[in-house]
Amino acid sequence: MTSGVPDRRRRVREALTAAAIDLFLTKGYEETTVDEIAAAARVGRRTFFRYFPSKEDVIFPDHEARLVRVAEVFATAPQDEPPLAVACRAVHGVLEAYLAEGVIAVQRYRLTRDFPQLRAREIASAHSYHIAVTRYLVDRVGDEPDGALWAEVAASAVVSAHNHVLRQYLKAGGKGDVLGKADRAFRYIRETLGLTAARADDADDDVVVAVMRRGMPLANVMSRIEDALER
Amino acid sequence: MTSGVPDRRRRVREALTAAAIDLFLTKGYEETTVDEIAAAARVGRRTFFRYFPSKEDVIFPDHEARLVRVAEVFATAPQDEPPLAVACRAVHGVLEAYLAEGVIAVQRYRLTRDFPQLRAREIASAHSYHIAVTRYLVDRVGDEPDGALWAEVAASAVVSAHNHVLRQYLKAGGKGDVLGKADRAFRYIRETLGLTAARADDADDDVVVAVMRRGMPLANVMSRIEDALER
Repeated sequence: MTSGVPDRRRRVREALTAAAIDLFLTKGYEETTVDEIAAAARVGRRTFFRYFPSKEDVIFPDHEARLVRVAEVFATAPQDEPPLAVACRAVHGVLEAYLAEGVIAVQRYRLTRDFPQLRAREIASAHSYHIAVTRYLVDRVGDEPDGALWAEVAASAVVSAHNHVLRQYLKAGGKGDVLGKADRAFRYIRETLGLTAARADDADDDVVVAVMRRGMPLANVMSRIEDALER
Repeated sequence: MTSGVPDRRRRVREALTAAAIDLFLTKGYEETTVDEIAAAARVGRRTFFRYFPSKEDVIFPDHEARLVRVAEVFATAPQDEPPLAVACRAVHGVLEAYLAEGVIAVQRYRLTRDFPQLRAREIASAHSYHIAVTRYLVDRVGDEPDGALWAEVAASAVVSAHNHVLRQYLKAGGKGDVLGKADRAFRYIRETLGLTAARADDADDDVVVAVMRRGMPLANVMSRIEDALER
């Protein structure tokens, strides 16, 4: 769904994607030609290539638009929103776009599982989110000591949490509380890797005393400390 | 360097890689043919394809062997070594392999920066480490609540820390304290994401009291807590 693109273009694009998915699932990826996809969508071969640069791109029709929306989240994020919160919000938008696709996303998952060329294309897509998020985080904290390292690690954590939650959902045929799991996953990342955000907070000097058992799991220690510090 | 492979095979392989890097750097990737690479290494085209499945593989001659070594680290790691420590150790081995290559690694970095096909191949390689590490961590902690999520996030953090440190080093032409930076990066990851390791520790029930200022950076809070808990 590319906002601003006329209806007819959107319809042709969707028809090509639907036809390609159908053919790939029934005949196989290698065995399907661009001509067959175009014919099934009732357009010509040249029209196909006006929409997609190659056969493998046809099942990722929305990738560029999603990257644009991620960039928009970064461009419009308030400067006082913690960088990792912005990153999670942007990647959450990508997740929502997958969910909005419904069965298409489930079918694409099956295709990327079965056909290495499509899997390679999917890995490259995920990597482009990693790069976009890393760049944003570097912009925000790259000047701090180890900021660039943190940016890259945090970006990969956010993107891989998204990938994990989404993959479980698609593997289950599009079932399960994917949004609840995503919230938990992103909260985990913000709690564990949100150091730089915390560092940037305004500090005051109240004393906090925390009491805990030595054997308490570190996760519980952390959450008790965070409560005490009201973060 | 593949241990157990006869010297002649190793020499031919290295000659093909050296010839390819030289040609790619001077003529460009697209403009160089497999026949030219083979001729420069004084072998035939068919010999080339006995060593490498495609032109893009020739600059990653050691990739499979590195994956094997990662798998060996996982297969031989003691069960009481924290999973994230094993993961860092395995990926550190990959870093050492890059450093042992010397100028080849720097030249490959330039090629992957300049030629998208080689960059895509590099991304796929990095992804194969991510998958290997994720699988190992899932084996170790997949049964715990959110263990699979943690495994994937932690694996991506370890691999991206490696990538970051290595890329900075290669970008600088192979200069800088890469091992010191890697140690710091892996320590950071173990300190922030090592929750599952901590959870598996034997617990006793001494009470620990920690006192801190509310404005203390979370990193300092964490390190004070870890000291108090003697982890």
